[in-house]
Amino acid sequence: MKHAVTYTLLKEDPRTRARRGVLHTPHGDIQTPVFMPVGTQATVKAMKPEDVAKLGHEGCGLILSNTYHLYLRPGHELIRRAGGLHKFMNWNGAILTDSGGFQVFSLGKMRKITEEGVKFRSYLDGSSHMFTPELSMEIQEALGSDIMMAFDECAPYPADHSYVEKSLALTTRWLKRCKEHHKNIETQSLFGIMQGGTYKDLRAESAKQIVDLDLPGYAIGGLSVGEPKELMYDVMDDCVPLLPKEKARYLMGVGSPDCLFEGVERGIDMFDCVLPTRVARHGRAFTSQGNVDIKNAVHAEDHGPLDPNCDCYVCRNYSRGYLRHLFKSEEILSSMLLSEHNLHFLVRTMENIRKSIEEDRFPEYKKEFFDAYGKF
Amino acid sequence: MKHAVTYTLLKEDPRTRARRGVLHTPHGDIQTPVFMPVGTQATVKAMKPEDVAKLGHEGCGLILSNTYHLYLRPGHELIRRAGGLHKFMNWNGAILTDSGGFQVFSLGKMRKITEEGVKFRSYLDGSSHMFTPELSMEIQEALGSDIMMAFDECAPYPADHSYVEKSLALTTRWLKRCKEHHKNIETQSLFGIMQGGTYKDLRAESAKQIVDLDLPGYAIGGLSVGEPKELMYDVMDDCVPLLPKEKARYLMGVGSPDCLFEGVERGIDMFDCVLPTRVARHGRAFTSQGNVDIKNAVHAEDHGPLDPNCDCYVCRNYSRGYLRHLFKSEEILSSMLLSEHNLHFLVRTMENIRKSIEEDRFPEYKKEFFDAYGKF
Repeated sequence: MKHAVTYTLLKEDPRTRARRGVLHTPHGDIQTPVFMPVGTQATVKAMKPEDVAKLGHEGCGLILSNTYHLYLRPGHELIRRAGGLHKFMNWNGAILTDSGGFQVFSLGKMRKITEEGVKFRSYLDGSSHMFTPELSMEIQEALGSDIMMAFDECAPYPADHSYVEKSLALTTRWLKRCKEHHKNIETQSLFGIMQGGTYKDLRAESAKQIVDLDLPGYAIGGLSVGEPKELMYDVMDDCVPLLPKEKARYLMGVGSPDCLFEGVERGIDMFDCVLPTRVARHGRAFTSQGNVDIKNAVHAEDHGPLDPNCDCYVCRNYSRGYLRHLFKSEEILSSMLLSEHNLHFLVRTMENIRKSIEEDRFPEYKKEFFDAYGKF
Repeated sequence: MKHAVTYTLLKEDPRTRARRGVLHTPHGDIQTPVFMPVGTQATVKAMKPEDVAKLGHEGCGLILSNTYHLYLRPGHELIRRAGGLHKFMNWNGAILTDSGGFQVFSLGKMRKITEEGVKFRSYLDGSSHMFTPELSMEIQEALGSDIMMAFDECAPYPADHSYVEKSLALTTRWLKRCKEHHKNIETQSLFGIMQGGTYKDLRAESAKQIVDLDLPGYAIGGLSVGEPKELMYDVMDDCVPLLPKEKARYLMGVGSPDCLFEGVERGIDMFDCVLPTRVARHGRAFTSQGNVDIKNAVHAEDHGPLDPNCDCYVCRNYSRGYLRHLFKSEEILSSMLLSEHNLHFLVRTMENIRKSIEEDRFPEYKKEFFDAYGKF
């Protein structure tokens, strides 16, 4: 049986581990490396789906949505009856759903982990729930996402070696249960998640266990959870090569501009992060010349674009002065425009990264980008 | 010298006072009767200007913006330096600016009226300001709106006959000062405002005084300020015919679906109201079958469109169930979609009204609309 989602490696950078590929999904081919906008509650915040699809120059065909949030509201069975998540949210591209693991573990005292799964209380009404690998698969099947993520435990940072060792073993046992419970492999694909914290021996152990299951793709979880960036890069240096070359590699929850380059350099194909839309709602923008805080008074009389090197809808039509006015006036259009610009910026940067890999100048492009950006 | 804005009467309904016309502006011709979306702070809330321009089937070419709000923030001189309001907010259609009169009078104890003008305190920082007819003209000239409204006093409801009599006389003296101060009549046009509360003799007196000034258009102010709708219609029955047929007539601040029909029936050409976007942000929608409160549980499993008789972007692409989910989840897209639908609904209804006048079936169309709508 053919997997719903497959990966084709097109080219490897001769000087780094960067790679150019294509992720084939039931909802279209996705050029990699790729940044996935996040649509937590079945909407990429403050964006119409048509505008998400048009991001960058080549468009955006893959977004992430959230099993945990959609399970609690409006409920996965409601979305199933509505015809699935694609139809419900009017998105014709591909969708990756996370498993809910990260969200339930983030609940702290409001959850309890057992071999069976995780018990937690709803943040909406305090009701009691239990997530298991099987339920996570059932929810993601109801949503109808193209890529389903395994239900894992994301260990905190810092955590003891012994805790992380037990945790990754539990994650592997849960992954096996996910795989066992997942039937429709021709329409939806299950990706496994490597854990192991910042311990290289445990990362290697986790990699070995999950790669043995021969899944169509693998994610690196448990990074960007509070550890220094240099430590994250160091762990990636060692653990990315442990994943098979012929499968897609996804670095979960990472999407600041610098981390995209560092991840690509280490062989990552897929990224997601709420950062571009979250900071947009707080008036902050990514630009080719670094971060801009639009509420600063210096922008009030600036009649030029947010980013002089950007050709997005926002930079073609609005001034910094107008964007500052919208933000100060608490207008919804402020979040709409800054979200669109920030997402365009990351999607367009990934397009440039792909082109630079094709043309054997990825390291040079990275240096240019970092030099122009300044402080991240 | 030719006025910037002129009106052509195309046709009068043989059975009512409804009329079909064209308002010629420096930013395009506007078919009337017309509903103008409100962009208080230089943005129609939760809408991109391109989407405003595409409302209805024929598009929307005239919006309203707010002198008072833009004077306080970001400041009219800043907007002048930015190239004017059209450029600042990326709107290529026509703009009508109100004078700030209604807003400063709404401040209650925070303002003081004298012959010279109105002293008030800013709601933003408590600073002291004085609006005069001359300053209102200067602000509107800096904004560069196509239609400038005279600085008037909008008397409250209820108010004594003697108070309203003095108030309308003040409004007329201020109107003369506005006209005196307004120089660039070839690029911007000044509309006068009839006052007189609910007193027909005072409405007649006000009409006589302002019509004598031979302005390119006239508004009816001081209605829809708390009086019963029937009383408003009764006043309009008498006062609209006092305005010259060859000039555009604008009913200020009125825009509920029933009032649009009642106003058109009495000879009104232009309407504006914050209602469609304001109620949208509270989850309420206008539909051909009446008002819908999207947060009601009955819509949770409704996979059909918001309005089965609507062909707007929202009704073509989203279900009531999804719209309810967005509203309950406090997603920005909820305000975006409901605002777009509500504005489309009013703009499209005005298109239908215009067609019905052309085809001598306005009264029949009104009855059909009211019968289907139910309770307003």
